[in-house]
Amino acid sequence: MTAQTPVPVTVIGLGSMGSALAEAYLRAGHPTTVWNRTASKAEPLIGKGSVHAASVREAVAASPLIITCLMTYDDTLRVLEPAGTVLEGRALVTLNSGSPADARRTAEWATGHGARYLDGAVKNVPSAIGADDTLLYYSGDKSIFDEFETTLGVMGGHTVHLGDEADLAALYEMAVGGTLLPALVGFFQGAAVLQSRGLEASTLVPYAAKWFEMIISLLPMYAREIDSNDYSRPAASVNVFHRGAAADLDIGREGDVDVDWQRPLHSLVRRAVERGHGEDSIAVLTEMLKRTHA
Amino acid sequence: MTAQTPVPVTVIGLGSMGSALAEAYLRAGHPTTVWNRTASKAEPLIGKGSVHAASVREAVAASPLIITCLMTYDDTLRVLEPAGTVLEGRALVTLNSGSPADARRTAEWATGHGARYLDGAVKNVPSAIGADDTLLYYSGDKSIFDEFETTLGVMGGHTVHLGDEADLAALYEMAVGGTLLPALVGFFQGAAVLQSRGLEASTLVPYAAKWFEMIISLLPMYAREIDSNDYSRPAASVNVFHRGAAADLDIGREGDVDVDWQRPLHSLVRRAVERGHGEDSIAVLTEMLKRTHA
Repeated sequence: MTAQTPVPVTVIGLGSMGSALAEAYLRAGHPTTVWNRTASKAEPLIGKGSVHAASVREAVAASPLIITCLMTYDDTLRVLEPAGTVLEGRALVTLNSGSPADARRTAEWATGHGARYLDGAVKNVPSAIGADDTLLYYSGDKSIFDEFETTLGVMGGHTVHLGDEADLAALYEMAVGGTLLPALVGFFQGAAVLQSRGLEASTLVPYAAKWFEMIISLLPMYAREIDSNDYSRPAASVNVFHRGAAADLDIGREGDVDVDWQRPLHSLVRRAVERGHGEDSIAVLTEMLKRTHA
Repeated sequence: MTAQTPVPVTVIGLGSMGSALAEAYLRAGHPTTVWNRTASKAEPLIGKGSVHAASVREAVAASPLIITCLMTYDDTLRVLEPAGTVLEGRALVTLNSGSPADARRTAEWATGHGARYLDGAVKNVPSAIGADDTLLYYSGDKSIFDEFETTLGVMGGHTVHLGDEADLAALYEMAVGGTLLPALVGFFQGAAVLQSRGLEASTLVPYAAKWFEMIISLLPMYAREIDSNDYSRPAASVNVFHRGAAADLDIGREGDVDVDWQRPLHSLVRRAVERGHGEDSIAVLTEMLKRTHA
């Protein structure tokens, strides 16, 4: 097989993301084998030229590169179990979500069956699959990444190998994911406040977007403070946020919304003040979150 | 005075933001009068051509357009009090932070003294002042916005008038601001998790930035769901976040970090499931936050 011949790929798990991945491989001309527990989900892909394997075992046996796109590591292990004996010598890439501990367990299972293992995370929505700037990051056996980098790039143009330890992708996924629910609830609270005045949530979107862009622009500075453990030259101090806590409670009165979800954040800020961090950068909260400092 | 003659401007309050504003007006050729309680802060601006008024009263009397850049509405009212009698016929623009209630009180005071009043918010950092894409939004007397739009544009190229009610800028400010602390603490938690593995917080920045960009891209969809009160076609359901709550707690174990600040968020999600919203969009939390639904 020359570098020009598209590598056969197997995609297991045909939810919206798995289906988008299989379609991207079909578009790119890869022989694409698919499998899904509910076979009907494979039908649109069969129409586009993919092969629907009769079993997981057949699906795994069909390609040197197996990509699973299931919900959790437990789902992945349960689905792959009957195919363990045909994994030998193949490259397994898992794209589910889960904890670093589960990633380590899955890596152990896969390598125990003679497979090479790479754990990955797609940092975008199904409709972005295949785009040049869609980011996927991986950790685990670098030889897979090196051998199949172009093939992995079919899913998204921006691919990164974080390191050889299989759990690093899950660790980074966990590390970034902690902002999602709090950021969304912050936005939903703002929407509820506007609605209390008869204003549409959609009018908030451009300003909320600008606000998140500002937060993005601040991250390198906060990361430098955290890495250097030097919080002494704050752009915004703990005291500024401490004063802001009162304003956060005004939101509740003004918009008749429940702001209780913010109380532990205010408590964290107050404890930082009490420990003498008032004039330090707000990034000193990183230290407050470490249990050894609690 | 023709449209070409730069309008004389007074800037009161010379913290980092106020100083940046005064500098922008000096650069744009406006006769610029400044005042600050601590007079030494005016010195760099005097060197660049601004006039330092001997009193707030003189500062206000010097220009048809007065811009205050103090911390709170209380600070603004306290500083302006001695100049109340010379406010008549002038345009007052305040850029402090605070609640809609305080904005209404300030508007009442200013109009009571015969001034026209516009309340504004700068949606960026001092170093971005004067840039084409720097956003400032205003609410209150639209005649000020119309008359001085070009002059206000010196502070930032993207200016918006939200409406005639003076408290709308503070309301939007409050509505967007609720995401800041939770989003930052989410990032700090991720940084602490990485540090527990000997990895630098700076390695998290590109992925966290991508993550926030993804959140930005989801906002229009969530706003549509909220405005239509139709949460029935979820991109991500409450159940998905409910399952994710367990993963959020894994972060604590994996990185030895305190995740207690997330408990009320998980509780909010759990209550949504209990009320039968499991298969609705996560944006249904907007309804859960309204006290009438609590």
